[in-house]
Amino acid sequence: MIVILKQGTVQNEIDRLSDFFGSMGLKVHLSEGEHATIMGLIGDTSLVDPDMIANLEQVEAVRRIQEPYKKANRKFTPEDTVVDCSGVPLGGGNFQIIAGPCSVESEEQITFVAQEVKKAGAGLLRGGAFKPRTSPYAFQGLHDEGIRLLLKAKAATGLPVVTEIMDIKHLDLFADVDVIQVGARNMQNFELLKELGHTDKPILLKRGLANTIQELLMSAEYIMSGGNERVILCERGIRTFETATRNTLDLSAIPVLHEKTHLPVVVDPSHATGIARMVKPMAFAAAAAGADGLMIEVHNDPRHALCDGPQSLTPEEFAEVARGVFALRETLNA
Amino acid sequence: MIVILKQGTVQNEIDRLSDFFGSMGLKVHLSEGEHATIMGLIGDTSLVDPDMIANLEQVEAVRRIQEPYKKANRKFTPEDTVVDCSGVPLGGGNFQIIAGPCSVESEEQITFVAQEVKKAGAGLLRGGAFKPRTSPYAFQGLHDEGIRLLLKAKAATGLPVVTEIMDIKHLDLFADVDVIQVGARNMQNFELLKELGHTDKPILLKRGLANTIQELLMSAEYIMSGGNERVILCERGIRTFETATRNTLDLSAIPVLHEKTHLPVVVDPSHATGIARMVKPMAFAAAAAGADGLMIEVHNDPRHALCDGPQSLTPEEFAEVARGVFALRETLNA
Amino acid sequence: MIVILKQGTVQNEIDRLSDFFGSMGLKVHLSEGEHATIMGLIGDTSLVDPDMIANLEQVEAVRRIQEPYKKANRKFTPEDTVVDCSGVPLGGGNFQIIAGPCSVESEEQITFVAQEVKKAGAGLLRGGAFKPRTSPYAFQGLHDEGIRLLLKAKAATGLPVVTEIMDIKHLDLFADVDVIQVGARNMQNFELLKELGHTDKPILLKRGLANTIQELLMSAEYIMSGGNERVILCERGIRTFETATRNTLDLSAIPVLHEKTHLPVVVDPSHATGIARMVKPMAFAAAAAGADGLMIEVHNDPRHALCDGPQSLTPEEFAEVARGVFALRETLNA
Amino acid sequence: MIVILKQGTVQNEIDRLSDFFGSMGLKVHLSEGEHATIMGLIGDTSLVDPDMIANLEQVEAVRRIQEPYKKANRKFTPEDTVVDCSGVPLGGGNFQIIAGPCSVESEEQITFVAQEVKKAGAGLLRGGAFKPRTSPYAFQGLHDEGIRLLLKAKAATGLPVVTEIMDIKHLDLFADVDVIQVGARNMQNFELLKELGHTDKPILLKRGLANTIQELLMSAEYIMSGGNERVILCERGIRTFETATRNTLDLSAIPVLHEKTHLPVVVDPSHATGIARMVKPMAFAAAAAGADGLMIEVHNDPRHALCDGPQSLTPEEFAEVARGVFALRETLNA
Repeated sequence: MIVILKQGTVQNEIDRLSDFFGSMGLKVHLSEGEHATIMGLIGDTSLVDPDMIANLEQVEAVRRIQEPYKKANRKFTPEDTVVDCSGVPLGGGNFQIIAGPCSVESEEQITFVAQEVKKAGAGLLRGGAFKPRTSPYAFQGLHDEGIRLLLKAKAATGLPVVTEIMDIKHLDLFADVDVIQVGARNMQNFELLKELGHTDKPILLKRGLANTIQELLMSAEYIMSGGNERVILCERGIRTFETATRNTLDLSAIPVLHEKTHLPVVVDPSHATGIARMVKPMAFAAAAAGADGLMIEVHNDPRHALCDGPQSLTPEEFAEVARGVFALRETLNA
Repeated sequence: MIVILKQGTVQNEIDRLSDFFGSMGLKVHLSEGEHATIMGLIGDTSLVDPDMIANLEQVEAVRRIQEPYKKANRKFTPEDTVVDCSGVPLGGGNFQIIAGPCSVESEEQITFVAQEVKKAGAGLLRGGAFKPRTSPYAFQGLHDEGIRLLLKAKAATGLPVVTEIMDIKHLDLFADVDVIQVGARNMQNFELLKELGHTDKPILLKRGLANTIQELLMSAEYIMSGGNERVILCERGIRTFETATRNTLDLSAIPVLHEKTHLPVVVDPSHATGIARMVKPMAFAAAAAGADGLMIEVHNDPRHALCDGPQSLTPEEFAEVARGVFALRETLNA
Repeated sequence: MIVILKQGTVQNEIDRLSDFFGSMGLKVHLSEGEHATIMGLIGDTSLVDPDMIANLEQVEAVRRIQEPYKKANRKFTPEDTVVDCSGVPLGGGNFQIIAGPCSVESEEQITFVAQEVKKAGAGLLRGGAFKPRTSPYAFQGLHDEGIRLLLKAKAATGLPVVTEIMDIKHLDLFADVDVIQVGARNMQNFELLKELGHTDKPILLKRGLANTIQELLMSAEYIMSGGNERVILCERGIRTFETATRNTLDLSAIPVLHEKTHLPVVVDPSHATGIARMVKPMAFAAAAAGADGLMIEVHNDPRHALCDGPQSLTPEEFAEVARGVFALRETLNA
Repeated sequence: MIVILKQGTVQNEIDRLSDFFGSMGLKVHLSEGEHATIMGLIGDTSLVDPDMIANLEQVEAVRRIQEPYKKANRKFTPEDTVVDCSGVPLGGGNFQIIAGPCSVESEEQITFVAQEVKKAGAGLLRGGAFKPRTSPYAFQGLHDEGIRLLLKAKAATGLPVVTEIMDIKHLDLFADVDVIQVGARNMQNFELLKELGHTDKPILLKRGLANTIQELLMSAEYIMSGGNERVILCERGIRTFETATRNTLDLSAIPVLHEKTHLPVVVDPSHATGIARMVKPMAFAAAAAGADGLMIEVHNDPRHALCDGPQSLTPEEFAEVARGVFALRETLNA
């Protein structure tokens, strides 16, 4: 951490600051110049609150060098984390496609889709029971009934299931769910993250629409600091000025995250683009960029889906995407 | 609502669609052309889910004309809403400054600040007990103790208090709080919004960093559709590429909101800019643009605040800002 | 084009408007409802200025349905355009890598790099002679001497060359250049675009940092409407709030552009990310998403490059990227 | 400037780097720690290219402390610059409103508007002769004829005139123009900026839609480093995800710019919002935030303006805005 002091800070104030930082277990190296005096703080600064230091009377500015996250940081955990999703490994070379409908609608629907995506090579089944919707008047999901149907599809196919939680008070309903998803709008719902840190289930954490990669890692750190280190990160598009796609899929986040963290990274091209015919090229691109997995919406009848139909693939379209992704990965790993 | 059909849609499909829309209580007017056939849906479309229509087999695109919110819509409630905050009116010409520290730290601190801001003309006291922080390692607020101290400051000064809720499970602690704040990161925590719709307290709803003005109104609609129509909207900066200020304060949101909704609009220049010396010019600007109120951070000792010190004013600085704002409003209303 | 009239527009005003649109060669279909009266304008509206219509006294809003570009529009030119770059075809299944240093520095440097990238499979050589730099104090390129050296490297290798123009007054210097590049900062330098519309050279048009896909196509239309239809589009990252990469590479632009236009699309992962070790994954991703080509910075000695060294690959690194890209394309085309 | 070295950099490499920086006239102070070695470079680094340093073999990262602009920097020129616009002073307490139509259309139009805005208190007349338009099919301005008519309006009223240049080849036509405007799309047309640095006319430089405040200052530096120090900066909205207004007016830029530079800052609420009825509140806000001037579109007949009618005020509306702005400034200066 670099602390830049105000011009005119006098020697005994500098000494007092040095003592203060020393008392935090940090070594201090001083650079004095005409236009600025600079203190380099050396040691473990990941637990230091830069706001607090910026408030000190003589401080003009603070710049972090070390990252503010520790458990998610690849520097301290160099090996890729492999998250065990009820027997299906994800990360560290274990690539998985998570597929299924935006919303669970009926037992027939979810079981049929589950069978189809399994045949095509999906490793996990997704399906929404609690749906965050911008409008209070839009379909909000089947709730506990949705989870019940999802678990029936799991029983029928053996696929572990991923579904979204919107409030910790529903946690009991997730007892047999394999992976709990935190949606983009809740990425900084810190109370929810803290509680999920006390569970023993893998958490699929989606990046918020306006959140930086570093903030995504800080939210993972919230979960991990509670004791649950099984976090899967998910890039699903950020909000920019471009309106041709629903959001802008930030695929550079894949190599950036692989550098900064040991956690697995999956990509959701369905929500990012909002357009079914963009899913195939963006799924290929995500796999080519090194994603550890994909999350893809598949619906038996996209035209009549209760939500997000325009971005859902049919089972046949999904099978074609999966085939291409597997072939592409084989080439890249050859 | 305008529905654009695909090229090549045949007559009996058009007839079936017309019947379908008719069954929803909508009148249909048809425009057929060489490159596109267009259906204008006339009637109350605020409850129609455009996603559902976009999914219909013959539909190429859907464009809303009517806004998707109803209770928050000025078209249906032309008069300004005045929110009664335990006797202090806000909105419809009643301008209020909400002032106080980012975090409640001690009884002396919050009571002292409350007395000072009251003297300077503030109508409500703010103070954080539950603090959303990006890092799990940063100070998270005094929680129930914070609310207890805030209520002591209320007792000492008579100022109604505003404080943030982060999880509905804490609602009981807010029994004597006058206005409940929903922070920017929870603007689309729909489960929280729904529950607050069943309370009888004014809700101060902050705009999310990446949320459009329309999404802010949809979140207000979530609260209002539950029965609680006492919503105060708050612009506090949006996330853009500019890094000179923490966020970009979108003051155009004030006149836009005044057109679209009858709800009061307050502005928080402290969080938007993150820089104490920018608060005065931006507070003046917000008042000049027609805000119904301001929310300003004031701390007895900003250099040693436990959070957000760099953006807090001293009581003296606040008094100067308040004087200027009141003078400016008097001129504009003359 | 859809024209929404103000509430209360009376019949003889509607008639006058209908006549006015009729006089522009457009058919008008009318939908009258309680909350809005809507006119659908049918016919060729690509030359109609929506601003002008929005100004008409009775008009509340105008929504385009047809795109405002014609020559760049795939609807009117369904077949992919193949741009002939002095014998090297680009587009319509002809994939090309354009490689070379950010700046031409010396004859040895540019010739050496040209030979290396040719060996690795590059089809065109890039090298900057005129360099747009944010600071007036930064290296601005070798200008005419840079172009002279670039042409020497062309003579030595047979690779056609691509280099950027910053002002039309330099056009004479580009007489033997094969492809003229318009940089991101000049994407809406309309005077430059108009002049390039009168040349007979292929133009590589880079998307501006804050420009939508539609604006990119409108800038292509500027060139094409002048008579020069050999335009190559280039996605090179847009400006967002994320700072982990220099810009955010918008790979969804590839499938979107392929739908909207017949012009070829290349991607520049070097400038987009600004980080050499991100070039490989993003080059793979761009190829997988269906790009018609790549533009990659290669430098003999990136550590001592006079500009943009941190994002340049060594010839060896480039050869590895090229091998992977070719293998991946073979798999996808199988 | 702070230079962070890679872990494992050995002593004699550190010594060589120190010598290298010493040869650039900089003093070096070293901080060595377990996780990082840091060099503080002290002295005048405004002419040092951080890219070049980042390229050095042992360097991990470079952080600027000093700003990269010198002539525009308030640190070196503490007093406000007052730009003399043919006798009308702007800046340093001299507030001016620049008003007039988007496009010059006819002698009657421009002279009438000039007389009206002068009566209402405008100090300068604006009017476009060269118009940058997204579409090649939209009205592009009257060019030399437009400038001729503008000068007639100047002769009739005595108001100095401001008009936009789009290509330096037109410079001769601007011989009698008082202030030359550089539009947002040309803010980084560096060749144009360099040439304007050799003229002796005030330059009104508009901020680009995706440009940071620092980039705006760097573009001013381009002009100033050529010898022309009479630069007026103009905030006119930046591009964000919000679509309720055409752009997002960044009023925080006013106090930020006043801190960083001595150059005057004007605000254009007409282009920023694109909506006439937003001009008044945003003009008030800009004045309240400390702008040195405003730039406002006024048209005799906005409904039939050839461009940007929806954002133009009538002369009566403008007079009301001007009265309010002057009253508000009087209050703030009292």
